[in-house]
Amino acid sequence: MKRRMISVQTVQRLPLYLSKVREAIAAGEEYISSAQLAKELNLDPVLMRKDLAMTGAIGVPRLGFQAIGLRDAITSCLGWENANEAIICGVGSLGQALLGYGGFRDHNLSIVLAFDTNPALIGKKKHGVPVHELEKMDALVRRLRVKIGILCVPAFAAQECADRMIASGIIGIWNFTPHKLNVPENVTVQRVDLAASLALLSHEIANRSRGESFKQGE
Amino acid sequence: MKRRMISVQTVQRLPLYLSKVREAIAAGEEYISSAQLAKELNLDPVLMRKDLAMTGAIGVPRLGFQAIGLRDAITSCLGWENANEAIICGVGSLGQALLGYGGFRDHNLSIVLAFDTNPALIGKKKHGVPVHELEKMDALVRRLRVKIGILCVPAFAAQECADRMIASGIIGIWNFTPHKLNVPENVTVQRVDLAASLALLSHEIANRSRGESFKQGE
Repeated sequence: MKRRMISVQTVQRLPLYLSKVREAIAAGEEYISSAQLAKELNLDPVLMRKDLAMTGAIGVPRLGFQAIGLRDAITSCLGWENANEAIICGVGSLGQALLGYGGFRDHNLSIVLAFDTNPALIGKKKHGVPVHELEKMDALVRRLRVKIGILCVPAFAAQECADRMIASGIIGIWNFTPHKLNVPENVTVQRVDLAASLALLSHEIANRSRGESFKQGE
Repeated sequence: MKRRMISVQTVQRLPLYLSKVREAIAAGEEYISSAQLAKELNLDPVLMRKDLAMTGAIGVPRLGFQAIGLRDAITSCLGWENANEAIICGVGSLGQALLGYGGFRDHNLSIVLAFDTNPALIGKKKHGVPVHELEKMDALVRRLRVKIGILCVPAFAAQECADRMIASGIIGIWNFTPHKLNVPENVTVQRVDLAASLALLSHEIANRSRGESFKQGE
């Protein structure tokens, strides 16, 4: 089957659908209707039907989607059918929090190596993951053919560390630093900026108490 | 001074500027030029000047911004001049990771209470923060006048838990669940969806190996 081109927005919603479909399978349900799914997730049913069609899953009239088939279609669409291995760079407070976060298992993501410059951490294990010095990244990442790098270093070290990841064969960087990275075209970056998100929340709360709000439409 | 209306994008960039300004102050620098800041952060200097002007900080010709004045202007703009107290709801894997994350201190955010339904956790402390049963939220949050709630429960419990937060006086919800919340107009929600972010990264990597890419412009 020729895969359809799929939008960023649809991909972002797929993990949510996947968790619901897994729940339904665990509850012994054989079919799932997109209308029911939309209702439970507080989403537009038309959007939901369109999203699910993009995964290549095929619905059965009056029954909905076969649950296991839908799960497999979403999983494949996300590239989650095989375990994705990742390295983490920066074992500070956020890096350790991410190493300790068990939720990545649900997405078949497994952090296999950690890197840091701190001699107090090198050679130790954090949450079961060995911490190596940065200089070993190239050899280790190449040998294990890891493709995903999680970047949790201080902002000033972000570009240098990303460059090293890319030189080691990493093609997807999950950037938890606030630094805007320069990367070649064949490398994908996803940024999660917790400080920026908190900034919006606290600025808005401060403004409410001052009786103001955001400028709209910029 | 009348505050200017400030865009979402500007607010999101302010924490990054703030960390640079703090570094400069720590290094003993008295003035900071927006051109230098833009260069170090890999950002457009015109955008940078516009952003800094929005904070109300006033530059000195040929010297730039007085560092401490700029720090205080940004901090005030973000509502970070006073400690913001927050509660966390859901002390599972992600909740514990966030409780253990020291980085919030840089943003004057302090998590003072945690809530969960798990009897094995209630009455204990996690990373120094006491865990209470959900039923105690209303009384405790009202007494301490906490305004920010961090939501880390499973998706199916998200709406109910958010409703309880709002009923207790919370006006800003940092939503780490994938659930789209229904909230009254006077409540602000910021969502951080780690699964959605990882989905984009792994979908893109899977597609690259299949020789495809995202549909553009949807």
